[in-house]
Amino acid sequence: MADPGEDGGKPLSEHDLIARYFAPLAAGFPGAAGLKDDAAVIAPPPGADLVVTTDALIAGVHFFPDDAPADIAWKALAVNVSDLAAKGATPLAYSLALAMPGPPSPAFLGGFAAGLGAAQQRFAIALSGGDTCASPVLMIAITAFGIVPQGRILRRGGAQPGDLLYVTGAIGDAALGLKLRRGDADAAGWPLSAAERDALIARYLRPEPRTSLAPALLAHASAAIDVSDGLAIDCRRLCAASGVAACIEAGAVPLSAAAASLAALPEALRLILTGGDDYEILAAIPPGRAAAFEADSRAAGVAASRIGRVAAAGGPRLTILGEGGTPLDMGSQGFDHFSG
Amino acid sequence: MADPGEDGGKPLSEHDLIARYFAPLAAGFPGAAGLKDDAAVIAPPPGADLVVTTDALIAGVHFFPDDAPADIAWKALAVNVSDLAAKGATPLAYSLALAMPGPPSPAFLGGFAAGLGAAQQRFAIALSGGDTCASPVLMIAITAFGIVPQGRILRRGGAQPGDLLYVTGAIGDAALGLKLRRGDADAAGWPLSAAERDALIARYLRPEPRTSLAPALLAHASAAIDVSDGLAIDCRRLCAASGVAACIEAGAVPLSAAAASLAALPEALRLILTGGDDYEILAAIPPGRAAAFEADSRAAGVAASRIGRVAAAGGPRLTILGEGGTPLDMGSQGFDHFSG
Repeated sequence: MADPGEDGGKPLSEHDLIARYFAPLAAGFPGAAGLKDDAAVIAPPPGADLVVTTDALIAGVHFFPDDAPADIAWKALAVNVSDLAAKGATPLAYSLALAMPGPPSPAFLGGFAAGLGAAQQRFAIALSGGDTCASPVLMIAITAFGIVPQGRILRRGGAQPGDLLYVTGAIGDAALGLKLRRGDADAAGWPLSAAERDALIARYLRPEPRTSLAPALLAHASAAIDVSDGLAIDCRRLCAASGVAACIEAGAVPLSAAAASLAALPEALRLILTGGDDYEILAAIPPGRAAAFEADSRAAGVAASRIGRVAAAGGPRLTILGEGGTPLDMGSQGFDHFSG
Repeated sequence: MADPGEDGGKPLSEHDLIARYFAPLAAGFPGAAGLKDDAAVIAPPPGADLVVTTDALIAGVHFFPDDAPADIAWKALAVNVSDLAAKGATPLAYSLALAMPGPPSPAFLGGFAAGLGAAQQRFAIALSGGDTCASPVLMIAITAFGIVPQGRILRRGGAQPGDLLYVTGAIGDAALGLKLRRGDADAAGWPLSAAERDALIARYLRPEPRTSLAPALLAHASAAIDVSDGLAIDCRRLCAASGVAACIEAGAVPLSAAAASLAALPEALRLILTGGDDYEILAAIPPGRAAAFEADSRAAGVAASRIGRVAAAGGPRLTILGEGGTPLDMGSQGFDHFSG
């Protein structure tokens, strides 16, 4: 894969680099002014609030330095769009801070811009502005903008005792894929076909945020969060913000065929429930809205599985029940950047 | 000065770190929701556009790794607010991506948050959200939001032949201060008092963006840019975007007493005119608005000096005239991240 600094040709100026690789990504957004100024104009439509989220990805921390530039770019945009989706917001635009070991090669820049372009098209979002600079390590910080009807942003903190917990898609694939991508010894013996391995790794490299679910969430959910650091820790965060507790049935957590074939291994099950990078959405749905939420999710083309229930605070913040109703011990329950 | 990773105590979780050091900086901004969610709400007032700018600072590239954390934080916010000011925008809020060698020490975090707090107060801006993560190198990416009346953002590209060129404050102090901060051999012999040295270094470490000038710029300027990479290169950028040329009289460029005492040294003069980090504003003012612009600048407490004039494109993009009207050779004329 292309290293940002490997090309020996004459380095592009910052101006030419932006004009060649990034201005085309801003062509669909008039407020970007072709990336020819230091600032963009973002005007949410009347009656809409702007929802703003920021996530940074650092080489060696959030991705492998030898990941394909297109995959790195896709993931950097996807993780931000996932936060928008969980807040019920429709993607609008994003600002990109890109710090690269320099001078960056055409292979790196071309791949990176192509990955951004593919992600933009998938998520219906446009580049509005940003900054490029030199850096000892590749770093991408994105601030993404979405819109919701005024006052309607969906927060983490609205879950009520009695609400049902739903999660989208399938959980755990990315955490399993990360172990395969890293070549961990214990993953070498997993009974998976080559196609299954590739599929799990792809789920780690190219998350698919659930943008199409935003309207159903706005219509029915009392709280939501995207599952980025692990189902267990993100469920605990939703509960803590809401002042409630939750119980999840491990057997109800939706799994891909590949993940299901590993779930009998205790360490794999723990990884599925606590590993990160799913970029699915966990939502609390009042029981009276459950049927409508399920129908609207289906109509949006997103599988939503009921995995548990919200309870009053008091006991443990989160209980995960295994086979026969026995609580599972999840250990540290997820990823934390500084104490994990 | 505190290294981000030097503290030996028990590391804070990401949650506790945000609650302790950053949530207080968001207390004045309701849309931040206390930094307890993944996204903020930013609602520009009716009739206003949101102006958005992004700038990243990297240790060893934009600041010295042993700069005081409070100075690093101040500068990271100031350089973004400077872009807002040059677009005529009033600061509103900012999102912070902070990547730190981890776990960060309380000394680093306390100093960094104090510097942000001081800058916030000076610039009347609040923290709206962001992301903290671990990184091999300290990196701060800020996306800042300001407001302008709808459709009124001031661009680089509106200068017309005949417009007068004005620049705020004093030029060159920061570039001279950088050489002193770095301890460059040729700066060791500069005939400066200790107080003058300290003042130049302070201008490099703690830029003062010209936020109070935004209304005067909106009222009178045809184009503006903040002087971040050097007066010469930023003037060329304004001219290129406007499709015009410009002539600047070196003797009219406003200098501090310390810079003036060095301007007879050819290398110092070159540095003053092409060095970066001024964070002053260069504006093109139609001749009929010059008196009003000067009066409004004075009323805003900002010195604005007339340094030259815009001309039709054709000859060189920028001519800088020295003593007796002889054009100066400025060489590469400024900082470029990848080909400078």
